[in-house]
Amino acid sequence: MDQKRLEDLLTKYKEGEIGLDQAVDSLRHLPFENLGYANVDHHRAIRQGFPEVIFGQGKTPEHVAGIAGKLLERSSNLLVTRTNREAFEQVSQVASDAVFHDSCNAISVRRDQTVRGRGLIAIVTAGTSDIPVADEAAITAEIMGNRIERLFDVGVAGIHRILSHRELLQSVKVIVCVAGMEGALPSVVGGLVGVPVIAVPTSIGYGASFGGIAALLGMLNSCSSNVTVVNIDNGFGAGFVASLINRE
Amino acid sequence: MDQKRLEDLLTKYKEGEIGLDQAVDSLRHLPFENLGYANVDHHRAIRQGFPEVIFGQGKTPEHVAGIAGKLLERSSNLLVTRTNREAFEQVSQVASDAVFHDSCNAISVRRDQTVRGRGLIAIVTAGTSDIPVADEAAITAEIMGNRIERLFDVGVAGIHRILSHRELLQSVKVIVCVAGMEGALPSVVGGLVGVPVIAVPTSIGYGASFGGIAALLGMLNSCSSNVTVVNIDNGFGAGFVASLINRE
Amino acid sequence: MDQKRLEDLLTKYKEGEIGLDQAVDSLRHLPFENLGYANVDHHRAIRQGFPEVIFGQGKTPEHVAGIAGKLLERSSNLLVTRTNREAFEQVSQVASDAVFHDSCNAISVRRDQTVRGRGLIAIVTAGTSDIPVADEAAITAEIMGNRIERLFDVGVAGIHRILSHRELLQSVKVIVCVAGMEGALPSVVGGLVGVPVIAVPTSIGYGASFGGIAALLGMLNSCSSNVTVVNIDNGFGAGFVASLINRE
Amino acid sequence: MDQKRLEDLLTKYKEGEIGLDQAVDSLRHLPFENLGYANVDHHRAIRQGFPEVIFGQGKTPEHVAGIAGKLLERSSNLLVTRTNREAFEQVSQVASDAVFHDSCNAISVRRDQTVRGRGLIAIVTAGTSDIPVADEAAITAEIMGNRIERLFDVGVAGIHRILSHRELLQSVKVIVCVAGMEGALPSVVGGLVGVPVIAVPTSIGYGASFGGIAALLGMLNSCSSNVTVVNIDNGFGAGFVASLINRE
Amino acid sequence: MDQKRLEDLLTKYKEGEIGLDQAVDSLRHLPFENLGYANVDHHRAIRQGFPEVIFGQGKTPEHVAGIAGKLLERSSNLLVTRTNREAFEQVSQVASDAVFHDSCNAISVRRDQTVRGRGLIAIVTAGTSDIPVADEAAITAEIMGNRIERLFDVGVAGIHRILSHRELLQSVKVIVCVAGMEGALPSVVGGLVGVPVIAVPTSIGYGASFGGIAALLGMLNSCSSNVTVVNIDNGFGAGFVASLINRE
Amino acid sequence: MDQKRLEDLLTKYKEGEIGLDQAVDSLRHLPFENLGYANVDHHRAIRQGFPEVIFGQGKTPEHVAGIAGKLLERSSNLLVTRTNREAFEQVSQVASDAVFHDSCNAISVRRDQTVRGRGLIAIVTAGTSDIPVADEAAITAEIMGNRIERLFDVGVAGIHRILSHRELLQSVKVIVCVAGMEGALPSVVGGLVGVPVIAVPTSIGYGASFGGIAALLGMLNSCSSNVTVVNIDNGFGAGFVASLINRE
Amino acid sequence: MDQKRLEDLLTKYKEGEIGLDQAVDSLRHLPFENLGYANVDHHRAIRQGFPEVIFGQGKTPEHVAGIAGKLLERSSNLLVTRTNREAFEQVSQVASDAVFHDSCNAISVRRDQTVRGRGLIAIVTAGTSDIPVADEAAITAEIMGNRIERLFDVGVAGIHRILSHRELLQSVKVIVCVAGMEGALPSVVGGLVGVPVIAVPTSIGYGASFGGIAALLGMLNSCSSNVTVVNIDNGFGAGFVASLINRE
Amino acid sequence: MDQKRLEDLLTKYKEGEIGLDQAVDSLRHLPFENLGYANVDHHRAIRQGFPEVIFGQGKTPEHVAGIAGKLLERSSNLLVTRTNREAFEQVSQVASDAVFHDSCNAISVRRDQTVRGRGLIAIVTAGTSDIPVADEAAITAEIMGNRIERLFDVGVAGIHRILSHRELLQSVKVIVCVAGMEGALPSVVGGLVGVPVIAVPTSIGYGASFGGIAALLGMLNSCSSNVTVVNIDNGFGAGFVASLINRE
Repeated sequence: MDQKRLEDLLTKYKEGEIGLDQAVDSLRHLPFENLGYANVDHHRAIRQGFPEVIFGQGKTPEHVAGIAGKLLERSSNLLVTRTNREAFEQVSQVASDAVFHDSCNAISVRRDQTVRGRGLIAIVTAGTSDIPVADEAAITAEIMGNRIERLFDVGVAGIHRILSHRELLQSVKVIVCVAGMEGALPSVVGGLVGVPVIAVPTSIGYGASFGGIAALLGMLNSCSSNVTVVNIDNGFGAGFVASLINRE
Repeated sequence: MDQKRLEDLLTKYKEGEIGLDQAVDSLRHLPFENLGYANVDHHRAIRQGFPEVIFGQGKTPEHVAGIAGKLLERSSNLLVTRTNREAFEQVSQVASDAVFHDSCNAISVRRDQTVRGRGLIAIVTAGTSDIPVADEAAITAEIMGNRIERLFDVGVAGIHRILSHRELLQSVKVIVCVAGMEGALPSVVGGLVGVPVIAVPTSIGYGASFGGIAALLGMLNSCSSNVTVVNIDNGFGAGFVASLINRE
Repeated sequence: MDQKRLEDLLTKYKEGEIGLDQAVDSLRHLPFENLGYANVDHHRAIRQGFPEVIFGQGKTPEHVAGIAGKLLERSSNLLVTRTNREAFEQVSQVASDAVFHDSCNAISVRRDQTVRGRGLIAIVTAGTSDIPVADEAAITAEIMGNRIERLFDVGVAGIHRILSHRELLQSVKVIVCVAGMEGALPSVVGGLVGVPVIAVPTSIGYGASFGGIAALLGMLNSCSSNVTVVNIDNGFGAGFVASLINRE
Repeated sequence: MDQKRLEDLLTKYKEGEIGLDQAVDSLRHLPFENLGYANVDHHRAIRQGFPEVIFGQGKTPEHVAGIAGKLLERSSNLLVTRTNREAFEQVSQVASDAVFHDSCNAISVRRDQTVRGRGLIAIVTAGTSDIPVADEAAITAEIMGNRIERLFDVGVAGIHRILSHRELLQSVKVIVCVAGMEGALPSVVGGLVGVPVIAVPTSIGYGASFGGIAALLGMLNSCSSNVTVVNIDNGFGAGFVASLINRE
Repeated sequence: MDQKRLEDLLTKYKEGEIGLDQAVDSLRHLPFENLGYANVDHHRAIRQGFPEVIFGQGKTPEHVAGIAGKLLERSSNLLVTRTNREAFEQVSQVASDAVFHDSCNAISVRRDQTVRGRGLIAIVTAGTSDIPVADEAAITAEIMGNRIERLFDVGVAGIHRILSHRELLQSVKVIVCVAGMEGALPSVVGGLVGVPVIAVPTSIGYGASFGGIAALLGMLNSCSSNVTVVNIDNGFGAGFVASLINRE
Repeated sequence: MDQKRLEDLLTKYKEGEIGLDQAVDSLRHLPFENLGYANVDHHRAIRQGFPEVIFGQGKTPEHVAGIAGKLLERSSNLLVTRTNREAFEQVSQVASDAVFHDSCNAISVRRDQTVRGRGLIAIVTAGTSDIPVADEAAITAEIMGNRIERLFDVGVAGIHRILSHRELLQSVKVIVCVAGMEGALPSVVGGLVGVPVIAVPTSIGYGASFGGIAALLGMLNSCSSNVTVVNIDNGFGAGFVASLINRE
Repeated sequence: MDQKRLEDLLTKYKEGEIGLDQAVDSLRHLPFENLGYANVDHHRAIRQGFPEVIFGQGKTPEHVAGIAGKLLERSSNLLVTRTNREAFEQVSQVASDAVFHDSCNAISVRRDQTVRGRGLIAIVTAGTSDIPVADEAAITAEIMGNRIERLFDVGVAGIHRILSHRELLQSVKVIVCVAGMEGALPSVVGGLVGVPVIAVPTSIGYGASFGGIAALLGMLNSCSSNVTVVNIDNGFGAGFVASLINRE
Repeated sequence: MDQKRLEDLLTKYKEGEIGLDQAVDSLRHLPFENLGYANVDHHRAIRQGFPEVIFGQGKTPEHVAGIAGKLLERSSNLLVTRTNREAFEQVSQVASDAVFHDSCNAISVRRDQTVRGRGLIAIVTAGTSDIPVADEAAITAEIMGNRIERLFDVGVAGIHRILSHRELLQSVKVIVCVAGMEGALPSVVGGLVGVPVIAVPTSIGYGASFGGIAALLGMLNSCSSNVTVVNIDNGFGAGFVASLINRE
């Protein structure tokens, strides 16, 4: 793991295994290497306890695989979001244990499987169409060392559906709540629990949903005070923050 | 009452009490009279079973009273919305039984108290700040001959509040549901009942509520199929349509 | 029919045909079954007098057919909206009497043909391009047991077109009014009648119509007080609410 | 009148009353004089047959009177829009025949009363609240030499009101149609006549009318092809263009 | 021509060639015939002096040809906008003299070539990309009997281009001004002339042009008072109104 | 403290101090009491570990004091947001230890001063104008038992200002980041740390800041994955969620 | 002057007048001092050649004067924008040579009058209402050592006005172009010259100008490639950038 | 080069090599020639020191090549933006030294390679996805005779990346800063330097980035006063203005 790499380095230096120059050099080397098309930022792994995730959209399969290769030299786990099967095939060349997630078009490599979270993270969706975004959140949280509970298709039009899971919801450390249309679910969920609820609006819907804006506005105006919001369809961001909240 | 006035006229004509010319003349007289500043539309009362409501905003107290006087010559009940105490004092001159409603700045005259609705109309609000709009809806429905149940401050952040009234909600003929902020209440209420829910977004809120747009969009995108929407803060419209739905 | 199923169950229990445990079990069984990808909500049929309609968009043909099969075990009528021919072919496997509606891409199964409405529902459109949305409303209302009158292409630019149908409009119990562009038709229709008018903005148009927003805003700001609005292109919602209003 | 001034000048030159230098000098003098705070553009009067109208908003009473004085040296008629009583008092000092129009806060000076229009201009409003904007249009058209017909409070919710004036509408040369809320009136009026209809959205309304945007969009998307639109509350612009259309 | 048809009918009736019944019948027949999918509105031709134009978008080639056939039975000229070559081939079956206009995807039939306009109509564009919309305006105006002057690619970034045509612009009766991007051309043109300028925003542009909204707003806020606006890309509407203004 | 009250109740019941009926009664009593104008929701305190905060806007001083009195019967700490000095004077009558916070117009009563947070919460602002919103967040977090570090006026235009506090930022458990204008600060702060950053857009700014929308959009689109967002000016919500994250 | 102060310091150090420690200390001291309510950023003066301008809006007169006093200890020139007379009186206490600019509510102190620009800066406005914003730009540029040419009220509706200044415009180094309404002036000006044009939209206008958005969009979509844009009403920013461009 | 062409012409005239008539004729000939589909504006090259750039979007390959050919008769350098390989092949026929730039779909012809800039122009991007827009800016600036420094993928989430290039940034004459998502980079860069920063928002992003609007608003509201903004994705405009600023 990455934080450990840094600590090892500093310990080795303190204990004389490596000299000052070598330490400085290693540290200087760590940050970002110029691949010409992207700065691979190893420092972020140290700063945030997790390697840079590759945002796949708009990158060629070759670029994705190139960056992935560089990152895996120094990091155990890797996530590529908004990518495709073609990029997966290229990444498989440099990491044969890479996995492709169909539902949300992500690639993951998970070599470090340590559980790091204090408790459970619940991933909740209003409808079945919200599942791809929820899966992105779930995969992100899992690769960051969390245990997940999925609770899908429990929207507010049939309020008994979410109410029947009240106990589970009240036992987790943080909730990711994914909803399109009017985005009302986080308000109801938020009112049932005493933990942070991360709301993710989805672009699912039609008419005046405006690609998720209706849901986004609904969530920003939630009458439940424990709700914060991430960008439309940003399952990755929600899973990432949920992981940070769930840390020891 | 107005429909009755028309029926009386036609009956009198049929029974020979008045001649053809007189009937035609009366009918011709009914429609709109030119007061110079507004066409008083008596026909609408006949067409829709209710006299023209005076939209008070932007009219001087004198104009309001002038129109009110004309209308009360031919109609038993009257409603002035978006008005003020000054206009009320003028209207009191021409109708000593006029009542001013502080909460929603309306004036009502109710001489015909017949109950015309098939059942109850529930008026529900998410918060206490939504009450003025709900009162406008309630007063409108009452003056149109309906019995009302008020259910205030039962928003979704404490879902048990609305759930504890489930039985009442399932016994009414139509529900007016008033909410600001994220506008989630109509979706939850709509999911609990099998009758039409008329959603009224309110301009209450701050930040990205945009004067009620967040609530409006939430309601338009409701996942409950029995929800229709009226304009922001339009309590009158909601009470009016609820009355039409509740008619025999 | 579904309400009947529930009443039968409770009557049987009262009359001793089934015991308490069995009754509770049946009731508990009724709600939602987990198919893995969607909670099939039988309770809604009981609560709202109509089985859950399948929103086809974004669901695979297999999922649609799977949910349809489950629903038809307990319900007589079924509607799938925003679907396609491929899904229809799959649904036909589990319901040979399913019908595909080309104009609005819907699938219907109608085994219970009882008429339940108090009167007629008029479905009115401003132009020929609004017909697909109007058809979705009409099919929805028909499968819920209503008699329909279609009045298409009677927009306000030739006002005599709608006026020549005044008598029909004044005889129905509720009107669904579908219009794109400036969305002016509901205001005119609303002024002619004394029953609720459900306005459906359509995304037809170009330039500053903004995919139906111009029509939506026009309808929300209607000067006729008997107009409520549903989401852009939401023919299903309009037909659904119209059916509720037309019920005994 | 201004065009006449120019013709006089050129005629005088041709007939030898003034020399070339003097003619050139006069012409050069005509355009704009620098008052320090505003370019008074006499040429526009020549180019467009009407002196520059003073847009009063944001100008001090002294500035308004200063510009007015300069303009009246060379022009017979003058219009100040969006002004107030204080400015009027100042203008009265330089033009004792100035008139203040309360309804629309305009000042006019009309010394040349020649009728120049080919026919009538109808100014139509949907409601009583639209009258100030309509009055601005009417005053503008009158000062430009047109005969006006006012038709107020004939909105579409009572369609018989506008229909009862069909004959008048079909006899005019151009129609200015002022409406707030959903802005539906121009579409109906446009469908009744074969002349240009200039639609003016007003900022009257509440809720989702957005200060006139709903009406503006409605008018831009009018299904009647003879409708063009000016800015929200821009009565002056509508009256101005109507005058140009009505010219010989 | 259509107005003439009506006059002939009334003359024949007056002169005894046809009886009252026949006259009434013909008049009654004229209005709209139900083709099942569209009301063909012959009355509009009478009311506005031009047959109903077919808005081709969203109509099948068969429908277009069907409506075209009906219209040509009673009208000499015909225009189909927003259509395609396939529809043209169908229309050619019923009208061998139909012409297809590639630049703006319109079909025209022009059997009556009478010139009806008082003067010239100038059609001006800011850039070359605005030409399709300008062509739609030009074809519309031509089929309505007007003479046209085209002035293309004279946008404000090279102000000398438009200035070099000042004389022409000052000689026409009405100007159609088509521009995308910032939509500044109508303001400049409007300032140069004393006739109505009809501004047409186009959806040409990128970035924050928002499909023509930037140009639309620019035109609505024009500082030249003789500018009115039609919908984005609505060349037809502009050509139509220009023709009405140019009439005797 | 509230959670403690509940535990006491249940323990007393278990240990026989109170009977079942009394326990049930107490629990039933706890939820919401109807004051006529607002449901005081004691359960929320139990569910979320904190009493209902009073949203003061739109409530009369009397109402605020009335609700405050009820809440303080069962809760130790109280917060009133968006209120004023008049309400404070009323609240002082029922709680002499109430404190008024000028900077953000809040009233607090803090009788339980237990520290409950695991670590520090940093409250960071971009400019001095963001301080009122930051203060609302700070007061909220303090009353919920947290230690706070304030870091004001460290916006990105002088990047060294925020960088000079890097160490502090990297030592806290959660950061509230308040910014108006372009809302860039959360992205920079988020990139420096490995803990959740709660971004609060403020309505400070002018021109195209649109009352905080520019900042809101900037924060939603943050390139730092540890950023979540609350509504514009919603300091309370940010402080509330930060407290939940900082809990043991 | 500020850059000079820094150079002096470094020179003194090099020449031995002050020691290393003292130099480092002075440099360390320079950056920002904490006044409690604002970080006074002296480094910016060094980095950008100009002291931090005080954005007065939302700051108390005391705060403004406090910050002003601190800044003047180390800087020769000072500018306070968006302030008022009250703040000016306070500032006069600490700087008796401060000047208040009525037109744009700014305070300036100009002790260093060196001219630093390579050439002239032209400040151009479309109308008289744009002058306050233009004055803010002019004062900013002047205090930064530039010579200014003002060209006011030369909007595009009378194109000859701007054309008559073509020579002047073609002789300057950079142009600030201020306009409201449709914001067309920068496009025309940009087309006439070969230097950068900085466009400033103003919030002047009414109707669909939306507080300057129409002008902003017009300027962003300018067809002249030498136009860049600053925020609505941001005269200061425009004057600031113009000064940077005009530097040696 | 173009300015030189004009000077040659005038010199030749002064020295008698050509007569007055010929000079006037040449000058008259220079402006715009009518190709039927586009006015080729040679004067702009003279006015702005650079030939008209062809905006390729929406033009056929033949048109592009036709205009290119005309322009190259009188100009040494040429740029076609928003074009494609097909147009490039056509252009190659008339200019065999034309180059196609894949990354931003531009064609350039560079026959005059003189360096004209005073210093360096830095082109900076936040992410790798912003590179196409940055390349358009770079190519534009290069063809106008500037030396460029590219600094890609240095966004604010890893603030050390941009900080490590501080020295370079502080040595250039002007900076083009390209960023999508929240558009925060220009604020940070602007705070580091004392030269103009031209911000280019890109349409890269998802969810509430709205095709670049979030970045655009962020940049317009930048707290750094040396930032001006061009349209979304308008790399050409940014490179063009940067070149003007960098001129001698």
